[in-house]
Amino acid sequence: MVRRTWRLGVAGLGTVGAGLLDFLAGNPDFAPAGDRAEIAGVSARSRSRPRPVDISHLRWFDDPVAMATSDDVDVLVELIGGSDGTAKAAVEAALRAKKPVVTANKALIAEHGRELAAIAEASEVPLLFEAAVMGGTPAVKMLREAMVGDEVSAVAGILNGTCNFILSEMDATGRPFAEVLAEAQRRGYAEADPTMDVGGFDAGHKATILAALAFGCAPCFEAAEIEGVQAVDQLDIRLARELGYRIKLVAAALREADGISVRVYPALARLDHPLAQTSGALNALFIQGKRIGRIFIQGPGAGAGPTAAAVAADISDVMTGQHRPVFQKPAGELKPFTRIDASRHASRAYIRLLVRDQPGVIAAVSETLAECGVSIDSFLQKPVEDAGGVPIVLTTHLAPESVLRDAMDRMARLDAVVAEPRMLRIAPI
Amino acid sequence: MVRRTWRLGVAGLGTVGAGLLDFLAGNPDFAPAGDRAEIAGVSARSRSRPRPVDISHLRWFDDPVAMATSDDVDVLVELIGGSDGTAKAAVEAALRAKKPVVTANKALIAEHGRELAAIAEASEVPLLFEAAVMGGTPAVKMLREAMVGDEVSAVAGILNGTCNFILSEMDATGRPFAEVLAEAQRRGYAEADPTMDVGGFDAGHKATILAALAFGCAPCFEAAEIEGVQAVDQLDIRLARELGYRIKLVAAALREADGISVRVYPALARLDHPLAQTSGALNALFIQGKRIGRIFIQGPGAGAGPTAAAVAADISDVMTGQHRPVFQKPAGELKPFTRIDASRHASRAYIRLLVRDQPGVIAAVSETLAECGVSIDSFLQKPVEDAGGVPIVLTTHLAPESVLRDAMDRMARLDAVVAEPRMLRIAPI
Repeated sequence: MVRRTWRLGVAGLGTVGAGLLDFLAGNPDFAPAGDRAEIAGVSARSRSRPRPVDISHLRWFDDPVAMATSDDVDVLVELIGGSDGTAKAAVEAALRAKKPVVTANKALIAEHGRELAAIAEASEVPLLFEAAVMGGTPAVKMLREAMVGDEVSAVAGILNGTCNFILSEMDATGRPFAEVLAEAQRRGYAEADPTMDVGGFDAGHKATILAALAFGCAPCFEAAEIEGVQAVDQLDIRLARELGYRIKLVAAALREADGISVRVYPALARLDHPLAQTSGALNALFIQGKRIGRIFIQGPGAGAGPTAAAVAADISDVMTGQHRPVFQKPAGELKPFTRIDASRHASRAYIRLLVRDQPGVIAAVSETLAECGVSIDSFLQKPVEDAGGVPIVLTTHLAPESVLRDAMDRMARLDAVVAEPRMLRIAPI
Repeated sequence: MVRRTWRLGVAGLGTVGAGLLDFLAGNPDFAPAGDRAEIAGVSARSRSRPRPVDISHLRWFDDPVAMATSDDVDVLVELIGGSDGTAKAAVEAALRAKKPVVTANKALIAEHGRELAAIAEASEVPLLFEAAVMGGTPAVKMLREAMVGDEVSAVAGILNGTCNFILSEMDATGRPFAEVLAEAQRRGYAEADPTMDVGGFDAGHKATILAALAFGCAPCFEAAEIEGVQAVDQLDIRLARELGYRIKLVAAALREADGISVRVYPALARLDHPLAQTSGALNALFIQGKRIGRIFIQGPGAGAGPTAAAVAADISDVMTGQHRPVFQKPAGELKPFTRIDASRHASRAYIRLLVRDQPGVIAAVSETLAECGVSIDSFLQKPVEDAGGVPIVLTTHLAPESVLRDAMDRMARLDAVVAEPRMLRIAPI
C-alpha cells in the first residue's frame, strides 16, 4: 500500500470544522486506508474568533478559494455551508483544479449537485458528502455504494433533528410549538433564524440528495414539496396519541414508473413504529429495495462528534483512490428529475374537525366522506377544553390525496364545522 | 472514467450464486462505477444439477482453483462455503494470482481472515465479504468504511435469521423448540443438519468478523463463547413475556481496555426494544461508537435476492479500484485477539426457579440473592400447569456474571428448589 500524506485544506471552522480539527489532533496516526491525512491550511470568516481548538499553528487563508487552489493543498474540506457564494466558489475551484472535495453542505449538493458532479467527474476526482445527510449515520454511503445491486423504490424517514426535538418535546411536555422552539434556541438545538429547520427546507435538501442517490436522477430541490412543523398543533399531538400515533416530520422520496416525488410533511406514525420511536435529535431512514427488501437505519443526525466522524470517513474514502460516480450514475447519465403529481398518491390520513356540539354532526361528516369514497379506519370524538369546538378525529383507509382534499373542502363547508379542518398523512412506510 | 470489463469467475451455484447470475442476466448494463462486469466462468459440484438459472452458455470449470487462476478470470466470486477445503484453496489461489476476491463465506473469514487478508494485501487486491454478515444489510461496509473516524466500543445484535425465525415462531405459537425447528426445516429456513444455525456457530462466525472490523483485531473464532437456542424453553418465553421481555439470540462483541469478548447467547430484550421488534428472518445490529454514539441498522439477513445484491455491491467496490485494508487495519498491524474473561462483565439477568409450593420459599430465594449481593429488579410467582413445580422468575439489577453464577449455584442447593435454575442475560445494549 502506497503511504503518502494527503494535505487537507479545511474551509469553515464552526461546530463541524472544529470537531474535525479536534479529531485529527487526537488521532495523529489516522490512516485507515494506509495513507495519512494532515491539515495543511484553514480558512474561516474570522481568524481571531474564540474557538474550542487551537489554530495558531495552522496556515491561515483569508480566501477559501485561494486555499482550494493552493499547491500545498490536496483535498478541500468544505464546511462553510450555504448553497451559493464562497462555499460553491471554493468547491468548484477545487474540483476544476483536480482536487477531491469533502463537504457537509446539503444545500450546495441539493441545489447544484449535478453541475458539481459533472466537474468532479471530468476532473476524475471524488466529491463526497456523507455528513450532509443524517450526520454520523452513513445514509449516503448506503445508498451510493451498498444498494447498487438493487433498485430502490422509496426512502422515507426523519432527517431533521431540530424538528424531531421540537415534536418530541411538544409530545412529552404538552407545551405549544412557540414555547418549545424558544427553548430549543436557548439550548442551541435551533438557530436564531429557525426557518431552514422548522420550515422543512433542511429535510427537503437531504431528501433531494437521497432521491438522487437512490434513483439515479439529478438532484432537484425546486421540485420538492415542503411543509414544516410550524403548524403542528398541540391539540393534534394529543388526539393523535389517543388514536395510537405520534406526529413526526417525515421526509419521503418515492419512485414510480413515470417520475419521482420528494416531499417533507408532518405525518403520523403508530406508537410501535420505528419512526415513532425515533426521538429527540435522532434521525432515521427506511430504504425500500426491490431485491433487498426493507432496511432501517437510525442514529445521530447532527452534532460535532458524529458529523466530524462522517467527514473523516469521507477523507478516508478519498485516500482509498476509488473512482465512482457522485450520484450512483455518471452526471451525464443521470435521468432528468421528472416530478410526478403527488396528489395522485394514495395516503392514509388523519383528519381533525372542530364542530358544534349538536345532533347529526357525525352523520353529516361520515356521509360526506362516504360520498367522496373515503373509508374510515378509526373515529374519536372527545371533549377538549378551550379547543374552540368539539374535536372529532378520524383516520382513513388508503385514498388518493386528491380525493382526501376534496373531502376536506366539503367538510369545511358543513354547517356544524366551526374551523378549518386539519389533515395529516399517516407515514407511508 | 475508464471503461473496462471485469470478468467474473463464480464458484458455487447454490441460492446466492444462482441469485447473482439471475441479477447479472437481468441487469446486463450493471456498471455502477463506470466499468462493466460479466460472467467469464462458473464452477460447482455438479454441472447438470437442475438450477433456477441457465448456465449452458457459460464456460464451465470442474475445478474452482483452476478457474481462480485462469487467465480469462479477473475476479473470483466464492460462494461455495465452508471454512476449509475447496473454498479456501480457491480464494488463496486467486489472491496469490493478484485477483480480487468477493465471498459470502463467513466461516472462511472468521477462521482464516487474518491469513487471507495478509495475502490480499501483499497482492494489493481487495478481499470483500459484505454478504457474509446480515445478507443484504451492509453491516460490513458500515464498520469497515463509515466508522473509521470513530472508536467502536461494542456491537450487538441479531445475526442469525434461522434462530430468530424459530424464536419468533415459538413466541407467536406457543409451540416447543423441536416442533418449530422441524417446521423451519420443512419450509427451507433451516438446514437438514441445523447445528451451525441453532447452535449459534453461524452467529459466532459473524460476530467474530464484526469484532475484527470494529476493533481492528485479528478475527479469532476459537475465542468466541457460543450458546445456541436449543435450550430455550417455551416456559421461559412465556414467563419472560409476562415480565415485558422477548427472548432473542444475541451476538455481542465488546472491547475493553485489556481485551475483547465475543459472545452469542439467548437474551431478553424489552418488548419495546428494537431487538425485540426484530422478528422472523430479519437481522439487526447496534454499533456503539465513542464519537458517533449509537447506530442501529435492521434488514434482511439472508435470502437469494438480498445476499446476491450484497455480492453485487462488493463487485462494484472491486471495480472502483479502491485500496483499503481488509479489516480496517493492514493485516500485519491487527492487534492479536486478547480474550477477556466474560464472567467479570456485569449483566442484568433473568432467573427462573421451579420450587415446591411451601412457606418460606420466597424468603429463602431473596435471602440467597442478598447474601451474594444481587439486587432484585422485578419478581413474579405464577402457577403454570405441568411445569414440574411452581415457577418463580425474577430479573436482577446489574451484577458481575461470576456473582450471578455463584447465586445460581447456591439457589440450586436450596431445599425447595426442584430443578436446575435457569439464567438468561438481559440484552447488553
